[in-house]
Amino acid sequence: MITSTNNDRIKNIVQLNNSSKARHIQNAFAAEGIKMFMEAPLLCINEVYLSEELHDKINIAVRYDDDNDEAQLLKKCASKLKETGYEEVSAQVFKKMSDTVTPQGILTVVRRERHRLEEFLEGKDRSDLHVLILENLQDPGNMGTMIRTAEAAGYDLIIANEGTVDMYNPKVIRSTMGSIYRMPVIYSHALAADIERLKDAGVQVYAAHLKAKRDYREISYGRRTAVMIGNEGNGLSDEIASKADEYIKIPMKGQVESLNASVAAALLMFAVS
Amino acid sequence: MITSTNNDRIKNIVQLNNSSKARHIQNAFAAEGIKMFMEAPLLCINEVYLSEELHDKINIAVRYDDDNDEAQLLKKCASKLKETGYEEVSAQVFKKMSDTVTPQGILTVVRRERHRLEEFLEGKDRSDLHVLILENLQDPGNMGTMIRTAEAAGYDLIIANEGTVDMYNPKVIRSTMGSIYRMPVIYSHALAADIERLKDAGVQVYAAHLKAKRDYREISYGRRTAVMIGNEGNGLSDEIASKADEYIKIPMKGQVESLNASVAAALLMFAVS
Repeated sequence: MITSTNNDRIKNIVQLNNSSKARHIQNAFAAEGIKMFMEAPLLCINEVYLSEELHDKINIAVRYDDDNDEAQLLKKCASKLKETGYEEVSAQVFKKMSDTVTPQGILTVVRRERHRLEEFLEGKDRSDLHVLILENLQDPGNMGTMIRTAEAAGYDLIIANEGTVDMYNPKVIRSTMGSIYRMPVIYSHALAADIERLKDAGVQVYAAHLKAKRDYREISYGRRTAVMIGNEGNGLSDEIASKADEYIKIPMKGQVESLNASVAAALLMFAVS
Repeated sequence: MITSTNNDRIKNIVQLNNSSKARHIQNAFAAEGIKMFMEAPLLCINEVYLSEELHDKINIAVRYDDDNDEAQLLKKCASKLKETGYEEVSAQVFKKMSDTVTPQGILTVVRRERHRLEEFLEGKDRSDLHVLILENLQDPGNMGTMIRTAEAAGYDLIIANEGTVDMYNPKVIRSTMGSIYRMPVIYSHALAADIERLKDAGVQVYAAHLKAKRDYREISYGRRTAVMIGNEGNGLSDEIASKADEYIKIPMKGQVESLNASVAAALLMFAVS
């Protein structure tokens, strides 16, 4: 059992929580909580840390074989832990590794999956393709919610420019409710060029834009579409907005100037899919 | 100028930030930031506090008459401040009053508006009425986003049970982006009974529910409708769900079990309006 917060592995988890550079170099991220552990694909799990307290709880659940919901979950947890292996840590050490106020006592270090735009374009000229394009999104909660909503709407891919918040930020991960493992996200060095590649592959690109005239609900969308969403305060840059095939409008009543970015993305993704 | 954090008025602001009971007793809430000050209806403003720093910035903007966006905003601020009056406070005191990490330097104490359900029901039997019903919503960001989205979708009223997060919580206020001043919200002591009153007034009540069979996009909604959204983790209670005239479904792909509550509310409100 690790009992010192000076342990190098513990220090490394703190780094994975706090630094997108560390996550990038190590090609891994830290995901907290039972749900995130249970949903993590086995092949992507690098390490698992378990607090002393949760370890005891799991042992009790296994030994006394209760059948309430919590005990059932803990028993499922126990059998997955047998496959992954784990490291036990003291309560104090777990608190140090944790990014949450009330930690559940389990943290999984997961290998990041990398995707290339080609995977989605090559040889699929005639199939459906739905892409969410993000520029300079800043709020981790919005980013996580969009990843979750994109999976629910059946989107194939999210492309974000490098100014967008890191998808492996702990707050983003929590808001995805597990979709982080399943929704492909590509960070683009050259978003404008990548949008051109989508268009060359027959993808119709729509942008939510204040200058738009057409209501998003009145358009009949094709089978290969992309929707663009910009920064929470400033919307899309002129450069990226100019790449759109068409501007679309979400009509708003009252004195509302704009919708929350993840709400706007949800309305468009559920219409354009 | 107030320079002591022991000043009673300053202590009171801290209470308004932290305690829904204090907000209730005083029938007032604290709203931070320039946008929230500018959008606050004059008649509802009880007090305004200005940091020394913002006070200086405003004076400079007025004196040198710059025409950039920031100076324009500060000048508008200055003329509204003439009408409302204000109290200057030191930087240290403002930090104490502030609920944000990077305070803008202005805090408005606003009188809460109270609404009664009768206002919306009496003598309006034939007119449009759109209501969002919330049960045990917990996340302040979700609540604020729903208030903002409800205004944008042209909703008339939100009814929340008393287990729902206080709409005057500072985090809720910030996420409303000003809609807090315009969107009527009623906290109900007896939500089930109030839903019956809506139904008696000809309102058709829809609930997002896992048991639903009909896609929310395939229904033709009437002119008097209500949509119910439940707790983030547990959804609607059986008691409240049973009051619905019809269950509706948001179809989800992938392995997503549910959508973020404010996303679900947005999809339904923009469909049912």
